[in-house]
Amino acid sequence: MAELRIELIAVGDELLMGMTLDTNSHYIAQSLAEAGLRLQRLIWVSDSEEAIVAALKESWERSDVIIVTGGLGPTHDDLTRPAIAAFFKDNLVVREDLRQDILKRFESRGLKPAPGWETMAEFPTGATAIPNERGAAPGIHYSRDGRELFAVPGVPSEMKGMTQQFIIQKLSAQRTGAYQFRVIKTIGVGESHLAQLIGDPTRLLPTTLAFLPSVDNGVTLRLSIYAEAGSEEEKSLNRSEAIVCRAVQRYIYATKETSLEAVIVEILRSKGLRLALAESCTGGMITSRIVNVPGSSDVLDRGLVTYSDRSKTELLGVDTGLIVEYGAVSEDVARAMAEGVRKRAGVDIGISVTGIAGPGGASDTKPVGLTYIGLSDQSGCVVNKYLFAGNRQENRRRSTLAALTLLHGYLVK
Amino acid sequence: MAELRIELIAVGDELLMGMTLDTNSHYIAQSLAEAGLRLQRLIWVSDSEEAIVAALKESWERSDVIIVTGGLGPTHDDLTRPAIAAFFKDNLVVREDLRQDILKRFESRGLKPAPGWETMAEFPTGATAIPNERGAAPGIHYSRDGRELFAVPGVPSEMKGMTQQFIIQKLSAQRTGAYQFRVIKTIGVGESHLAQLIGDPTRLLPTTLAFLPSVDNGVTLRLSIYAEAGSEEEKSLNRSEAIVCRAVQRYIYATKETSLEAVIVEILRSKGLRLALAESCTGGMITSRIVNVPGSSDVLDRGLVTYSDRSKTELLGVDTGLIVEYGAVSEDVARAMAEGVRKRAGVDIGISVTGIAGPGGASDTKPVGLTYIGLSDQSGCVVNKYLFAGNRQENRRRSTLAALTLLHGYLVK
Repeated sequence: MAELRIELIAVGDELLMGMTLDTNSHYIAQSLAEAGLRLQRLIWVSDSEEAIVAALKESWERSDVIIVTGGLGPTHDDLTRPAIAAFFKDNLVVREDLRQDILKRFESRGLKPAPGWETMAEFPTGATAIPNERGAAPGIHYSRDGRELFAVPGVPSEMKGMTQQFIIQKLSAQRTGAYQFRVIKTIGVGESHLAQLIGDPTRLLPTTLAFLPSVDNGVTLRLSIYAEAGSEEEKSLNRSEAIVCRAVQRYIYATKETSLEAVIVEILRSKGLRLALAESCTGGMITSRIVNVPGSSDVLDRGLVTYSDRSKTELLGVDTGLIVEYGAVSEDVARAMAEGVRKRAGVDIGISVTGIAGPGGASDTKPVGLTYIGLSDQSGCVVNKYLFAGNRQENRRRSTLAALTLLHGYLVK
Repeated sequence: MAELRIELIAVGDELLMGMTLDTNSHYIAQSLAEAGLRLQRLIWVSDSEEAIVAALKESWERSDVIIVTGGLGPTHDDLTRPAIAAFFKDNLVVREDLRQDILKRFESRGLKPAPGWETMAEFPTGATAIPNERGAAPGIHYSRDGRELFAVPGVPSEMKGMTQQFIIQKLSAQRTGAYQFRVIKTIGVGESHLAQLIGDPTRLLPTTLAFLPSVDNGVTLRLSIYAEAGSEEEKSLNRSEAIVCRAVQRYIYATKETSLEAVIVEILRSKGLRLALAESCTGGMITSRIVNVPGSSDVLDRGLVTYSDRSKTELLGVDTGLIVEYGAVSEDVARAMAEGVRKRAGVDIGISVTGIAGPGGASDTKPVGLTYIGLSDQSGCVVNKYLFAGNRQENRRRSTLAALTLLHGYLVK
């Protein structure tokens, strides 16, 4: 059987007007990929019955599976239900079983039913309901002419539940071949230099290679292929992975989907090392990334956002004289912060960041983007200097990545 | 002139495979909306010349303007340039002026030209180049048959520069009517309750109303209309805004696009109040949101992530006996943390959060999601108890919103 052609339609004016970041489509694409399936196309359409029907018509011609998100709620701008009924030339009829079910869901959560809730029980006659474990509106499933249509709510938790427990289940049962991929995650190196190290990508064929740079996690290399299990193509993927890993070895921090912070927490735990952080311009971003990892309390003692000069002195013991002489953003203060937080917390490793994130705060000798990052352990302290060229948020995220990169390098050296 | 029909095509397997969150399309949708323009449709297509040409054909039939992002770089999977040339039946020819320009860009940044860089100077004969201030690859602009096509790189900083400095400029010059909208940002209330307070949305017509819930920023109400300046429709929008504002008054924190943290920093500054934070499960998220706001150093003294019991005692003066008797996640410890951080920092307001974000850490009496948030000032301390039902990341984000909501309520009361 050939690869399933899957298209996604995300309904919502809020997407098209730039009010909402579309994390739902990202989640569905990711869930399909994890199940060895691949999305062929995504379409955003507005909250208009006409626009939804037009998108359904196009996608139905091109694909085996359509997934629709959004527009299933009880308010007047929820038009996916009538659009799907119109597309299949079915009627919308109140289903008493669904009505009871929806009412029970509100009651079980101690909520008054939302205004207009009964419209959620108006269901296309030819469809099957997809159970909603985390909310009220049922999803819609059609199986017709050898094709499938799934419609799920736009509320992320409800969409996620139905995607995992219904859509992925149904689709996984049908496939034989699968879209397979490998990821190689790198830090401390740019996309161009990686491309140079790897050389001509056509030697990896039929495996394809893509470069995915990210401000938060360095450059991810993605190798992919559509193949049956155990086939020649699958072997090509393994060969290609070995070639690429060899070429970029020194920059790799993971060869699976994970985060840099998860890798760091794992190494700290395995070595029995504990960490403390002193942040200034990053304002808690580094600490928050470490706390992202479940169980990080085993390795993290504290993270201090010492934003004022006074807090640097009081909490880290930074000498006021240093701040006066060199300024809060300086190599000397970064060193005193890293050493101070390590000693006061009584841990093995102290990390510090001090920088000018912008837009204000620059001087003739200290431009926006200037950042010092320190790492202190029992045997000494290193301080690196950086000059980032982004806006406030970008500079803070780059500083965070630089600090995590420094820490990772220290841990694996 | 009627509303411009604008479609966006985002090129990239990394989107369809769920490797990358599509922040570019969000940015472009937002930039268009700010300029009074509206995106009609977004399409994600794969890194395939055939797929790009097919999407261009469809969009060209339906729209006045096409914007393409991605696939303009120097690597083998960058296929937007040949696809556009094929679509317009133009040739790709090396443009010597662009070649020189690209080379200069690498040199000015002290970089060796990326492998394959010369392909970026292969340009469709009928197109105009869009200058790239922040990178190497020029953008592509076609104006043909009364329609426009713009293609820009997928690298966010380059895409942003070209969108603001070229695309929005060109399109703004053409429009008469505009898509207008108002936002009303609320916290501390759910979507259903807001809908009840507002009542029948058809009384707002021709203005349309949408509810945009967000884990980080509460529910945003968006009112919108397409209208010429000074027209009857525009007046309807103002009337509708007044009706909705009156109905939901007590939950509003802003009536423009802004963030809750920006509103809070502004109020703190205007009142001359200073803030300190003591976070546990949120791990720096609240502090980081405050630091998001330029100039937050005026109002934020410090943010302490007191993750270990020892750090709570040392840095906040929390009595060890309290932690032993009631546990680190308790009303008493939350109170001691808020008071401790306020007094030690010598500021006006202290905020504390302690909770069980999960997946581990729960006990028979303390489930995952249990969270206490404290607010201390000179006159006393309030502690609120919450029970969140999400995963680790969701619980941390909800705790962050709850803390900011508590602080905002305190500041405006």
